[in-house]
Amino acid sequence: MRSLITLTTDFGHDDWFVGTLKGVILAGCPDAQVVDLTHGVPPGDVWAGAFAVRAAYAWFPQGTLHVVVVDPGVGSSRAALAVRTRRYGFVGPDNGVLSLALAQEEIREIRRIENGQLCRQPVSATFQGRDVFAPVAAYLAQGGAWRRVGAVAQNWVRLEWPEPQVHEGSLVGRVLYVDRFGNAITNIGPAHLEKLGGGPVQVRLRGGRSGPVAGFYGAVPVGAMVAVVGSSGYLEVAVHRGSAAERLRLRAGDPVRVTTSQRCRQDRK
Amino acid sequence: MRSLITLTTDFGHDDWFVGTLKGVILAGCPDAQVVDLTHGVPPGDVWAGAFAVRAAYAWFPQGTLHVVVVDPGVGSSRAALAVRTRRYGFVGPDNGVLSLALAQEEIREIRRIENGQLCRQPVSATFQGRDVFAPVAAYLAQGGAWRRVGAVAQNWVRLEWPEPQVHEGSLVGRVLYVDRFGNAITNIGPAHLEKLGGGPVQVRLRGGRSGPVAGFYGAVPVGAMVAVVGSSGYLEVAVHRGSAAERLRLRAGDPVRVTTSQRCRQDRK
Amino acid sequence: MRSLITLTTDFGHDDWFVGTLKGVILAGCPDAQVVDLTHGVPPGDVWAGAFAVRAAYAWFPQGTLHVVVVDPGVGSSRAALAVRTRRYGFVGPDNGVLSLALAQEEIREIRRIENGQLCRQPVSATFQGRDVFAPVAAYLAQGGAWRRVGAVAQNWVRLEWPEPQVHEGSLVGRVLYVDRFGNAITNIGPAHLEKLGGGPVQVRLRGGRSGPVAGFYGAVPVGAMVAVVGSSGYLEVAVHRGSAAERLRLRAGDPVRVTTSQRCRQDRK
Repeated sequence: MRSLITLTTDFGHDDWFVGTLKGVILAGCPDAQVVDLTHGVPPGDVWAGAFAVRAAYAWFPQGTLHVVVVDPGVGSSRAALAVRTRRYGFVGPDNGVLSLALAQEEIREIRRIENGQLCRQPVSATFQGRDVFAPVAAYLAQGGAWRRVGAVAQNWVRLEWPEPQVHEGSLVGRVLYVDRFGNAITNIGPAHLEKLGGGPVQVRLRGGRSGPVAGFYGAVPVGAMVAVVGSSGYLEVAVHRGSAAERLRLRAGDPVRVTTSQRCRQDRK
Repeated sequence: MRSLITLTTDFGHDDWFVGTLKGVILAGCPDAQVVDLTHGVPPGDVWAGAFAVRAAYAWFPQGTLHVVVVDPGVGSSRAALAVRTRRYGFVGPDNGVLSLALAQEEIREIRRIENGQLCRQPVSATFQGRDVFAPVAAYLAQGGAWRRVGAVAQNWVRLEWPEPQVHEGSLVGRVLYVDRFGNAITNIGPAHLEKLGGGPVQVRLRGGRSGPVAGFYGAVPVGAMVAVVGSSGYLEVAVHRGSAAERLRLRAGDPVRVTTSQRCRQDRK
Repeated sequence: MRSLITLTTDFGHDDWFVGTLKGVILAGCPDAQVVDLTHGVPPGDVWAGAFAVRAAYAWFPQGTLHVVVVDPGVGSSRAALAVRTRRYGFVGPDNGVLSLALAQEEIREIRRIENGQLCRQPVSATFQGRDVFAPVAAYLAQGGAWRRVGAVAQNWVRLEWPEPQVHEGSLVGRVLYVDRFGNAITNIGPAHLEKLGGGPVQVRLRGGRSGPVAGFYGAVPVGAMVAVVGSSGYLEVAVHRGSAAERLRLRAGDPVRVTTSQRCRQDRK
């Protein structure tokens, strides 16, 4: 079977950077199948990159090697990592961008990329995707030995996944990511919702806008606010056939409150 | 030969949605070759998606499976379809997004996707591209039996292709699609133009702007308006080395009138 | 080994044009592996397309066929070229878009694409990527004979690569390309910098803004201007964790002056 490699970067599609990564990978591993996970991570946004990888990586077949290059510290002393888990491989900078996915994996070994022989020399100060991550990924996809990459890392940078808080009988979470459709993905999952004790629940935003938690977008009229447990397994604030990000001016980090509809009514008294 | 699958969606490139589709397809059909037809369909714009598929699908080799996910009604009761024609396969929601292509094909069977065993469970309310269309496409690309997908559909949603009208000896059509270059593709084809009886013809827009119908953009000076029978086989209103959409404020739905140049001169009297 | 074909165009990702190219290539050469170099070249910007190809083409394995469709003169009398060098193949319009890469290659043969039998008929006036370049690329990738493409070209359009000038002991170069991160790539390379005689050097922009030449972005505080020899081998003007293009309003063509820091201090007297 062909080696499968995914790429996640903040390179966008305007320049030749993604193409160059693929050239280097295919030069090192001609049989690789390279798939774009996304290149639309906002420039330097490590959190958004980590979130995208976490949301998508496990939908790929076992054995896939996930290469992530969101690297605002490129050229500085930040380390580079190659990680082998029970099911997957990961390659990327040690800035936390791999950490949300790794928190869900059974880790076998985490190594620092230290072997310059596996890199394209001279390694540039600005494009280590091309000079470090792509050739190391090609080496590993070719069946190269993980121990040759570098020493086992004793620690690495982890991003914190914020848990929603229970506050006076309601849940207070936050927006973690706003997608292309303007849906605002929160950190509130079905297990959290169960703590509210069943029955209809409502989502309230700063400023007072509110809407029901429902099974699908179309449960409310076109243009109305609704919250749905979305494809990533978390509550998403949406506007039926509209953009919640635009209409409700939602951004990553914004607080989201979930209450039972009953409590909601009581609040109004 | 490897199974060829194309993807057409309104997912854009900012998020991990397209990558996730590919992960699911490759997990189900490791030998598939997945090609992006486009992911730039405006969110929820079924017409634009149908137009893109119609314009491109037949340039792929016979046997290609075209997966289309422009699905504003996701989670509602709209059906999902798997269609086998003489030359191709199609998978997508039953909202008309397949219908412009299907109108050009010799249909062999149209089935509703009903077999939950072929889907990723639990099927999410918001991302059936991942949970329904991708795994069913992988199943079919692997050589799966069409009859196992679901029952034959007796009817399905069809979009109407608007025909230009002949009005006082001139043709009145409309803009169907505006592309990245700002060219406005109309519903007026060479067969319609022939009805005007040969000789030079002119295109006139609402507001009075006009330009000649010519063989190529460069037939007029830089910055001037011109209409050319374009690559999709229809008249396109363009501006030589410029954007007709910007200069002439053209949008999908705008009327376009074609007259013989003679009539055009008479009009001015 | 599978034939590797790269695509560089100004088609963007909104429409079905890139997908159509791939359909035609795979119809003609089912085993081809098609990789996007970039489709984000600004519409009709031959220089930017040539720059992107030059920056990326040599990172692909030998034998790769690079197809470039930035073609503002499509439908006019400009020629179409198929070029074989010692290491690669190139296919594209004769408007200079291949020329910056070709200037770095050992050319074996340059032919005009003249054999209509290799093209999709009828060749449209507006999309020769689909009707000429893609089918000819598929033909060549299938092992077709270069001599069947057309006659050897005696001359072809070359873009001029501007060399920086030495002026009163300082270098005067210019911005050649602004990338997605807002970094402004200049035409000043390490060999030019050596002419300044070693020691710390500074970059000065029109308007007086200046910053040091350093080894990596992080050598200056966040938000400060810095110049780094970047991944393309040329000095790039950057803002640490920011966009030089936005902050400093840099655009392609803008002059950039490099002086020794000493001279810089003398200037201030």
